[in-house]
Amino acid sequence: MTTPLSEFDTALTLTPVDSTSARSGGGPAFTAQLSDRWAIGGAVNGGLLLALLGKAASRAGEHSASGSVHPDPLAISAHYLSASVRGPARIETEIVRSGRTTSVVSVHLEQKQDDKPTGRVRALVTTGDLDALDGPEFITPPCPELPPPDQCYATTDTPQGFKSPGPFTERLDVRLTPGSVAWALGDFSAPGTFNAWIRFPDGREPDPISLLQIVDALPPVTYTWGHFGWAPTVELTAYVRARPAPGWLSMQISTSTYARGFLEEDVQVWDSTGELVAQARQLASAPRFTQKT
Amino acid sequence: MTTPLSEFDTALTLTPVDSTSARSGGGPAFTAQLSDRWAIGGAVNGGLLLALLGKAASRAGEHSASGSVHPDPLAISAHYLSASVRGPARIETEIVRSGRTTSVVSVHLEQKQDDKPTGRVRALVTTGDLDALDGPEFITPPCPELPPPDQCYATTDTPQGFKSPGPFTERLDVRLTPGSVAWALGDFSAPGTFNAWIRFPDGREPDPISLLQIVDALPPVTYTWGHFGWAPTVELTAYVRARPAPGWLSMQISTSTYARGFLEEDVQVWDSTGELVAQARQLASAPRFTQKT
Repeated sequence: MTTPLSEFDTALTLTPVDSTSARSGGGPAFTAQLSDRWAIGGAVNGGLLLALLGKAASRAGEHSASGSVHPDPLAISAHYLSASVRGPARIETEIVRSGRTTSVVSVHLEQKQDDKPTGRVRALVTTGDLDALDGPEFITPPCPELPPPDQCYATTDTPQGFKSPGPFTERLDVRLTPGSVAWALGDFSAPGTFNAWIRFPDGREPDPISLLQIVDALPPVTYTWGHFGWAPTVELTAYVRARPAPGWLSMQISTSTYARGFLEEDVQVWDSTGELVAQARQLASAPRFTQKT
Repeated sequence: MTTPLSEFDTALTLTPVDSTSARSGGGPAFTAQLSDRWAIGGAVNGGLLLALLGKAASRAGEHSASGSVHPDPLAISAHYLSASVRGPARIETEIVRSGRTTSVVSVHLEQKQDDKPTGRVRALVTTGDLDALDGPEFITPPCPELPPPDQCYATTDTPQGFKSPGPFTERLDVRLTPGSVAWALGDFSAPGTFNAWIRFPDGREPDPISLLQIVDALPPVTYTWGHFGWAPTVELTAYVRARPAPGWLSMQISTSTYARGFLEEDVQVWDSTGELVAQARQLASAPRFTQKT
């Protein structure tokens, strides 16, 4: 009996393609199917793409004669090239470094657009083995105390009048704290920070690859200013710091700098034991359309 | 009469090489000379390499038929592959995206080691035009009030017994605030943050490319724990948020997470008018050798 794949793992299905057709040097290529179930604002969510690229990087060694690759993404830097859409995608890999404790893989996701291969995301991934990391803890950000998930606000609690930005909002069970949804009631006095619980609704437990999805799963913090438009990611770097324990994750996103048409967003993710498991930062374009309710 | 190049600009000299010999698709290649004047702990400083790659990316369009490139680095993500040493280096570029308001360039710096091309740093660079950015300022981190530079501590004030980590420490005029040097006197009670003034000693004024050097110019914040060993950078992402005004820059570096053998370091840089001009974050390996004085 095989357990059916979770919705997330289905979305991350990679099919190796004949490596002799790979254009890049040294690494295998994969195909994937992007589903509009993960679309938001008409484009496939950037976190899903990050997870897909992270997984392709960690598997690059399996299908290559040119070097082994460590299993877990430690640092992944993605530069977004154009909006990804539903349909087939191709992921090329190149093993840039195959070292003793870490490897570096370059990954490139492209789709055919007007019959022409068009770059969607390019990323560099440093992989390592999370289980082999050791060393004492000198400093770590304390996990914020949040009200329990059932006292927080789910997507299904969205007030009437807010148009759903897309089916992606149903792919994760997000619970924003009461202090993080004041904007939905027209209160823009506490700008720049969201706190939330997050998990997959079908019970799929978190792992290092899924953290790459999680770090880009919340609405832009510009919502707290009443800026509800899409804030397209220019660049996103995520660090996975530890293998997450099962259960709810909690996270905080914030911005310190929202000026001149760009903002940075900083993300911290803790597992159910309170351990910091991921950090991420992205540079995003300011929302194109700003509307106050 | 030509003005002699500043020391920094001399170190960033790029010579285009015949692009027909470029192995990568679409972009030109350059050669550079790495000098041990920028060495620290035996390796060339990672910030100098970041600036070199940022400059190569911004110039990739000039020497290419495959697309134009915007002039300023907005986001650069570098993954460090092996330690760079004095001597010739080759930089390959690939224009990944040539868009209306931003471009993306992949850059790879390699050196010959045992007569074999060996990767040193690979980076992705999103470039844009800082002068064309506009939009109001919604939030920005306040520039910390620091004691004036002459009340801060320069490298030349280093107490006897501290061995200089290398000539790189003379390439920048760094002034750590009194609160940032307690570790030098054996006080490890305020770990994790440095505040400093910084400028080039020969009067070379800051510009966007030089900010890429600046973000990796201070000692590791692990010094505040008495951990004086080298903390090799695994990955570094920098955002340039504005063109800096002439004069002293001020900066703050801190870590929120130093655990399991890795630490992240966050950097903010303000110009002499108090505007935030750069943000950076790096993942570094914990110092290999820990010694308390």
